[in-house]
Amino acid sequence: MGVMSFRDSMFLLAESRERPTHVGSLLLFERPEDAGPDFLGDLHRRLVSSNEVARTFSRRAVRTVGSLGQWAWEDDDDLDIEYHVRLSALPRPGRIRELLELVSRLHGTLLDRHRPLWEFHLIEGVEGDRFAIYFKIHHALMDGVTGIRHLQKALSTDPEARDMPPFWQVDPRSKRRPADQAPAAVAAPRESSLLSSVGSTLAGGWNTVSAAVTDTARTATQVLGVAPALVDALYEGLAHRDTALPFEAPHSMLNVPITGARRFAAESWPIKRIQRVRERTDSTVNDVVLAMCAGALRRYMLDLDALPERPLVAALPVSLGTSGEGNQLGAILVTLATDEPDAATRLERIKASGKAAKANLDQRDPMAIAALSLAVAAPLPLGSVPGVSSMINPGFNLIISNVPGPQAPLYWEGGSKLVGMYPLSVPMDGQALNVTVFSYADNMEFGLTGDRRSVPRLQRLLTFLEESLVELEEAADAAVED
Amino acid sequence: MGVMSFRDSMFLLAESRERPTHVGSLLLFERPEDAGPDFLGDLHRRLVSSNEVARTFSRRAVRTVGSLGQWAWEDDDDLDIEYHVRLSALPRPGRIRELLELVSRLHGTLLDRHRPLWEFHLIEGVEGDRFAIYFKIHHALMDGVTGIRHLQKALSTDPEARDMPPFWQVDPRSKRRPADQAPAAVAAPRESSLLSSVGSTLAGGWNTVSAAVTDTARTATQVLGVAPALVDALYEGLAHRDTALPFEAPHSMLNVPITGARRFAAESWPIKRIQRVRERTDSTVNDVVLAMCAGALRRYMLDLDALPERPLVAALPVSLGTSGEGNQLGAILVTLATDEPDAATRLERIKASGKAAKANLDQRDPMAIAALSLAVAAPLPLGSVPGVSSMINPGFNLIISNVPGPQAPLYWEGGSKLVGMYPLSVPMDGQALNVTVFSYADNMEFGLTGDRRSVPRLQRLLTFLEESLVELEEAADAAVED
Repeated sequence: MGVMSFRDSMFLLAESRERPTHVGSLLLFERPEDAGPDFLGDLHRRLVSSNEVARTFSRRAVRTVGSLGQWAWEDDDDLDIEYHVRLSALPRPGRIRELLELVSRLHGTLLDRHRPLWEFHLIEGVEGDRFAIYFKIHHALMDGVTGIRHLQKALSTDPEARDMPPFWQVDPRSKRRPADQAPAAVAAPRESSLLSSVGSTLAGGWNTVSAAVTDTARTATQVLGVAPALVDALYEGLAHRDTALPFEAPHSMLNVPITGARRFAAESWPIKRIQRVRERTDSTVNDVVLAMCAGALRRYMLDLDALPERPLVAALPVSLGTSGEGNQLGAILVTLATDEPDAATRLERIKASGKAAKANLDQRDPMAIAALSLAVAAPLPLGSVPGVSSMINPGFNLIISNVPGPQAPLYWEGGSKLVGMYPLSVPMDGQALNVTVFSYADNMEFGLTGDRRSVPRLQRLLTFLEESLVELEEAADAAVED
Repeated sequence: MGVMSFRDSMFLLAESRERPTHVGSLLLFERPEDAGPDFLGDLHRRLVSSNEVARTFSRRAVRTVGSLGQWAWEDDDDLDIEYHVRLSALPRPGRIRELLELVSRLHGTLLDRHRPLWEFHLIEGVEGDRFAIYFKIHHALMDGVTGIRHLQKALSTDPEARDMPPFWQVDPRSKRRPADQAPAAVAAPRESSLLSSVGSTLAGGWNTVSAAVTDTARTATQVLGVAPALVDALYEGLAHRDTALPFEAPHSMLNVPITGARRFAAESWPIKRIQRVRERTDSTVNDVVLAMCAGALRRYMLDLDALPERPLVAALPVSLGTSGEGNQLGAILVTLATDEPDAATRLERIKASGKAAKANLDQRDPMAIAALSLAVAAPLPLGSVPGVSSMINPGFNLIISNVPGPQAPLYWEGGSKLVGMYPLSVPMDGQALNVTVFSYADNMEFGLTGDRRSVPRLQRLLTFLEESLVELEEAADAAVED
């Protein structure tokens, strides 16, 4: 049994029925051409025929008297694989709409804390000879990025690969894949992604602060007990507010208490379209993704008569290195310039803001970064501690993550081709919408996770994202013609 | 806004992720002969086309500062019918096994407290041209018996009935059905059921006690705050322990803390078979049902090498009248004589014990009945108050409810014939298995709800119930031959 890291245990401490803190991935596959009607049922039977799981997936979270009420990991000797690995089906006609509806529901329920904190759902009945996987993992086990990377490791670039080890038999912490498998093409970080691009210079600083906070917290026995340590860290961070929180984010419809139900929407856009805008406007892919989101949010909020006068501020997670266990994420803040009606000008303001934030990050002192990281990557405990939420909120209006993925197509059992891979994140109090963008093969995969009540008709944002990209394409073409 | 009754609010106060306190019903229908492939999809679209719901289904539970933290009901002005009314599907081949698996999962998740506390699931893809409904309702809204009665009210004895009002537009508290509907045959209580058979004489006493407890509780602001009132009531009850708790129930595998996941099993037995045993052994239908359960539990526990030496004790809910809102249930305790290998002798001991318990109930003083009722019908809060659980536990090993239902076949939309109707109940700490039996048309419908971890391979109990009935049939035949 091992005591959990302080940051990971926060995800358990702060969880409630309104605020589940698990992440998810939705994977869409084409059925192999020679697959019979029982392909998925047979696959499910094979998957549950063995109770063998990697360490990460066999441990459950416990609170013990011996560790003064701190959370720890314990092996589950009685693992019930049929509980974790489930076969589901879509009602007719099995469109993406029915798939998103089912996945929204599955993402809204809590994991059973008496068991290892994951569920794996095989979903049959997706029209167009497809099937899907929804994989749900508690944030205390791994963050969304690690989770989706882990899924890649369990897939293959070889369409002929067979009898692949199930996802939960692959250890997400090991770099090595099972010897008999062709390695999946996990891409080197692209210029497009902020994640891992600023990590190395900051890893040292982060770890120092993290260790100090953990020591202080070691005597804490419950969520209110750990709060002072967080407040200390935050206070330090806010003393450097000029650099740590350079923007004053407006209050918006996204920054309200949330309910338990979720709505998930997802769609793919060709990377080529985004690259073309990038080249013609001298931006980064990340700038264009942010500008797409900015334009879409502006339209969405105008429609609801809820656009704030001041521009929305987005928080962008950045990697702070991968030393040790747990989630090592920081963040930078960027304006979305949603007060700007012109798409080209909006993109320019976003570009400038991103550039300044990255420059800032290199100079900032470790304590300020730690405070901001806590606020972005683990805002739940802070938000639920009275008095603290008002200190940090609204520092930003939503989190937009851009995660680089594999460039080559991936395959699973029987030669099933992966045709879509969408991340589901964690909405929280004050953060009712989360946007995560993931690159895979020729597409950018957008996953939008929202609170069902405070973000009505979430799926309309997909339409607005397309309209926003068209607007940017027109602006880019105009820029070249000038 | 109305303050909730004390007893109903206890179901909210004591609820946790491991102990959801909702009840459920599983209804199995034959598809109409002329139904096309989109029958259920079309029905679902029609059902969600109106936001209109009866009062009971439009209110959500809130805790207000004004009511000193007590739970109250509030109208949800923003009801999202598509959240509550859902279309699901079974994976192939869509056997009862797949249906029970899906319903077990649905029954294991918490209701969203930000919304009215119910979910209605239409389930397509059941083999044999069938479909199912799973209706989930929080115990604070109504108990399982009221819930299943309510479902009956929304059905019709007329196979030609069309455009029936959805279940949630029928007010469960009103005796009247919508004017344009043929009334369903809600049966007069049968001799077979204890429910409502002893209610009238006790209703007055119960209400008096209930009112007193509510007054004491009015200043309580949280679960620990209400405990003293419960402890007082319990203490009074236990002072009369000779009558209130005539048995010493053994510790058993069913009386352990539970986890969040559920396993549900259900099957129908012809009433004729049970009636035949009843007649030949001079028993009641209730005695035979208890003897079936006793024989099955004995086999199940012997198999697991977990049969206690002393006989298991069952608690049987009885109705204490229907005045006012809320759940008016009491209980009697009956031995299951599981230490007895001979089926005939076991039945005789159960008969004698049931007779004595009913005789006792008429003489008992109101306070003792109230205490026992709290322990049976609302054991969650008591079980979760330190010190109290050991006082009442193990007073009994499991709750077995026998609820009379309609004798005529019922129909729903399009002439869909109801062919099965199974209740899902609430396992709780110390009560890992619940058996509810429901009579409908020519069958007794057994619904077994268990904690997935502490009651392994629950579905084997169905096999053992059949074996137990065969044993009783043989004993009954032998009795006549004697």
